Amino acid sequence: MAPTLTLKFFVGLGLVCLALSAAVPQMSPVDEEESMHPHLPPHGIRARAISGEATQAYWHEASKQLLREKLSQVRNTNRAKNIILFLGDGMGLATLAAARSYIGGEEQKLSFEEFPFTGLSKTYSVDKITPDSACTSTSYLCGVKANYGTIGVNAHVLRGDCQAMANASNHVFSLGKWAMDSGKAAGLVTTTRVTHASPSGVYAHTADREWENNALLEEGCGEQAAGLQDIAMQLIYGEVGSKLKVMLGGGKRNFYDPEFYDKGRRTDGRNLVEEFEALQEGNTFVKTQKKLLKVNATETGRLLGLFSSGHMHYHVEQLADPENNEPTLEEMTEKAIEVLSTEEQGYFLFVEGGKIDISHHDTMARIALDETAELSKAVRRARELTNPEETLIVVTSDHSHTFSVSGYQPRGSDIFGAAKAKGQDKKPYLPLSYANGKSFDLYYNTLTHEREDPVALASGDFDQLFPAMVPLESETHGGEDVGVFASGPWAHLFTGVYEQNAIPHMMAFAACVGDGLTACQNASD
Amino acid sequence: MAPTLTLKFFVGLGLVCLALSAAVPQMSPVDEEESMHPHLPPHGIRARAISGEATQAYWHEASKQLLREKLSQVRNTNRAKNIILFLGDGMGLATLAAARSYIGGEEQKLSFEEFPFTGLSKTYSVDKITPDSACTSTSYLCGVKANYGTIGVNAHVLRGDCQAMANASNHVFSLGKWAMDSGKAAGLVTTTRVTHASPSGVYAHTADREWENNALLEEGCGEQAAGLQDIAMQLIYGEVGSKLKVMLGGGKRNFYDPEFYDKGRRTDGRNLVEEFEALQEGNTFVKTQKKLLKVNATETGRLLGLFSSGHMHYHVEQLADPENNEPTLEEMTEKAIEVLSTEEQGYFLFVEGGKIDISHHDTMARIALDETAELSKAVRRARELTNPEETLIVVTSDHSHTFSVSGYQPRGSDIFGAAKAKGQDKKPYLPLSYANGKSFDLYYNTLTHEREDPVALASGDFDQLFPAMVPLESETHGGEDVGVFASGPWAHLFTGVYEQNAIPHMMAFAACVGDGLTACQNASD
Repeated sequence: MAPTLTLKFFVGLGLVCLALSAAVPQMSPVDEEESMHPHLPPHGIRARAISGEATQAYWHEASKQLLREKLSQVRNTNRAKNIILFLGDGMGLATLAAARSYIGGEEQKLSFEEFPFTGLSKTYSVDKITPDSACTSTSYLCGVKANYGTIGVNAHVLRGDCQAMANASNHVFSLGKWAMDSGKAAGLVTTTRVTHASPSGVYAHTADREWENNALLEEGCGEQAAGLQDIAMQLIYGEVGSKLKVMLGGGKRNFYDPEFYDKGRRTDGRNLVEEFEALQEGNTFVKTQKKLLKVNATETGRLLGLFSSGHMHYHVEQLADPENNEPTLEEMTEKAIEVLSTEEQGYFLFVEGGKIDISHHDTMARIALDETAELSKAVRRARELTNPEETLIVVTSDHSHTFSVSGYQPRGSDIFGAAKAKGQDKKPYLPLSYANGKSFDLYYNTLTHEREDPVALASGDFDQLFPAMVPLESETHGGEDVGVFASGPWAHLFTGVYEQNAIPHMMAFAACVGDGLTACQNASD
Repeated sequence: MAPTLTLKFFVGLGLVCLALSAAVPQMSPVDEEESMHPHLPPHGIRARAISGEATQAYWHEASKQLLREKLSQVRNTNRAKNIILFLGDGMGLATLAAARSYIGGEEQKLSFEEFPFTGLSKTYSVDKITPDSACTSTSYLCGVKANYGTIGVNAHVLRGDCQAMANASNHVFSLGKWAMDSGKAAGLVTTTRVTHASPSGVYAHTADREWENNALLEEGCGEQAAGLQDIAMQLIYGEVGSKLKVMLGGGKRNFYDPEFYDKGRRTDGRNLVEEFEALQEGNTFVKTQKKLLKVNATETGRLLGLFSSGHMHYHVEQLADPENNEPTLEEMTEKAIEVLSTEEQGYFLFVEGGKIDISHHDTMARIALDETAELSKAVRRARELTNPEETLIVVTSDHSHTFSVSGYQPRGSDIFGAAKAKGQDKKPYLPLSYANGKSFDLYYNTLTHEREDPVALASGDFDQLFPAMVPLESETHGGEDVGVFASGPWAHLFTGVYEQNAIPHMMAFAACVGDGLTACQNASD
């Protein structure tokens, strides 16, 4: 349904060469370092500078204002009736900083950057220094670190180990289950397939993130697949999935045999959507934005919305498509909150901006920043729709990317444009780039053996690739900590540096769910 | 004095080429993404895994422990008698994560990562999206954002504007002065020249960070230099510098005419060290580790220690040099605290691990991590030597670098080794790399036109360069937020996302110094 976005890049011919005089490396020049801080032309105060940035008074007053806000904050120790976890998949700090420039300027903040409490989450998995979105989902949803590629199981399960997956003692359960066990409702929203790594942490147990439908599970497990459930089946029939009140996102293809939906990927002749509708009165399925927006929260039982065959489209693709009938992340979030708010005992909601990660994997920095801005809108809406006295909102990421903001661009300049300084090859370079990725050979002229002028190459289109150093089909994740932003009851717990798996335990504490410490017990237990 | 560390890299001949088949870029594959999460061989639980990481109980118990610690923390609203600001120059979050692997494993924490409160500091300057260490020094020390390359002046002063620098109304003053105006003492410690960008924010006002001695000032300002003071002169005679109790670091050359010290860079026939000693009884100058360690804190007036001509040497160089007589950052920090602790009304101390930045500029990741570990030791010692009930310690950075941790290495593997996966060119790649820098042409074979095998090239020496994508003489800073870590009175103020210039205002608040809000006033003023 989305328009085909064409790429306008120069594509090399196979030999990528660079003409450069080789510099002999030297030990750090202890005595000279002028080159470290190049004499760039002064830019003065940028055209759109906030009035007064050149004065002491401006900065002193801004800090006084910050202090006043900080002093007026009280520690909210209410029991959290509702808990919402937002995940920006692959949203490291460089993505956040660049997104501010994208939405209007470096002095801006994303909605969740206004939250009063922030922490740093250590993302490594049991087996890898840099994790993927599967094991991190187990971490920030189930409170247990696990192995790369696995979801909802402990680290006794290696990726692809069907037998270990079958062993229920290896299964670990999410904050969604803890909340439902205490009488609350639970739901999930994502811009990816609802069976993708991040959301499936809410309800699934699998030795491989890829086993989203029966065909993939059978391919992975052969005969052993008989005793196991693929992720889509676990969403409809699993102990946790079968109780979720709201499930919104993409991924229709994993719920249908092609007999029922031509893009279906199941091979078991099933129509899981129809089965879902038949399971229980009130179960409602929607597949368009229009239908979603019309859902009457008070008259709906469980709500399943699948708006695309695979992942949902990028927000910029939705905007460009006159036929678009996919909701935005903000719209899905709003509807989910509306439906869940009918629950007297409150709810747990997981919301993922999942395509930040996917655009970064493709070195499409513009899209990654736009998807980050979309997440920011969804969080703002959630904070508007809920009461901070009773609803804890936590925003974080699962891992970073190798994305960086370099150079010394003038304030207010186009963050996608070139750095003012040039490389030693006298060519410009782009401040936004990746350590690796498929764009590697786009920025070299294979005929002249030189780095291409990236400004000449830059299409300015949303799908423009940004440079990468190591040629990889898919850019990798980054290993540094990600931010945690919290607002509402017990939000003050979320400051400090901690392991990522602590996040659901702290949310459970605030809501008095789960079998760990809770705000409703004597904390010294 | 340091031994010459030799480099063992293959150096190309001038033509750098890569043989690679060019991949045609495609829009994000909405339906297929297996390549994004490569099927790496499972590693199981790493050999040196902490016992129990494969069990739910381990992670649940660890989170309970964290919660117990968090619940036992009280908001310390004491007036801070002492305030210490540690700066890891160029120490972004990727540096911190990689440093944990370097010191023993991903599950480790640096000393200051144990601090209970963390925040995120926005580092842009008035004129640049990504700042340098000069304008950021003005920001985190004087509480005012300024222009790239300038120190202790507001943004009415462009870099190199001698006339604007002469105008006292453009001068801004540091937390060091605010503290001294309230009767406290102040001091600074750095591994760089004491006249370098970061420490000079404590006491100097200059339109150009490079004007560290009279020759450089005169070169920059010509006739206008007559009314101005170079940075070294400001340290000895300036309104703030002349009152500092402790000044320890490198940079002797800026204090002497060659007549008095053969490496001296002054051209005015002055010997500022001798002048310092003559200024006041008790003024003490030391130039060796041995002499520093022997300083009797109670018998010393003002203490000036200059241990090298330029910046001090890297910790690994000090270790390798049997003649080394430079103190470590930890030793300088300890002596500074010892001397300042004799002050009844308390003190402000600035401590910089300045060579994290310098090694990153040279893409020497091993050294950057080692210098980070040295900063961690200094902070640990400071926390041991002081009472958290009366001493606020804040640790932060001025800006990040383009350094990233990529790939998906097994837990416990050598962080400097190769990623398990290979590039599309079938060659390994290093997980630690930079977006730009002088190492650009070291990792390409100019004869075969291919990316070099970085494992074959890796010397394993401390001065090994790590790969960079854009050829620059000096790797650039990164633009994302840096962490803030706080412990002691009012440390809870330091959570959240805020402008970097808020840091000294919050420290001043805790210590009741300066003319902003303080904990000793009615906060609603």
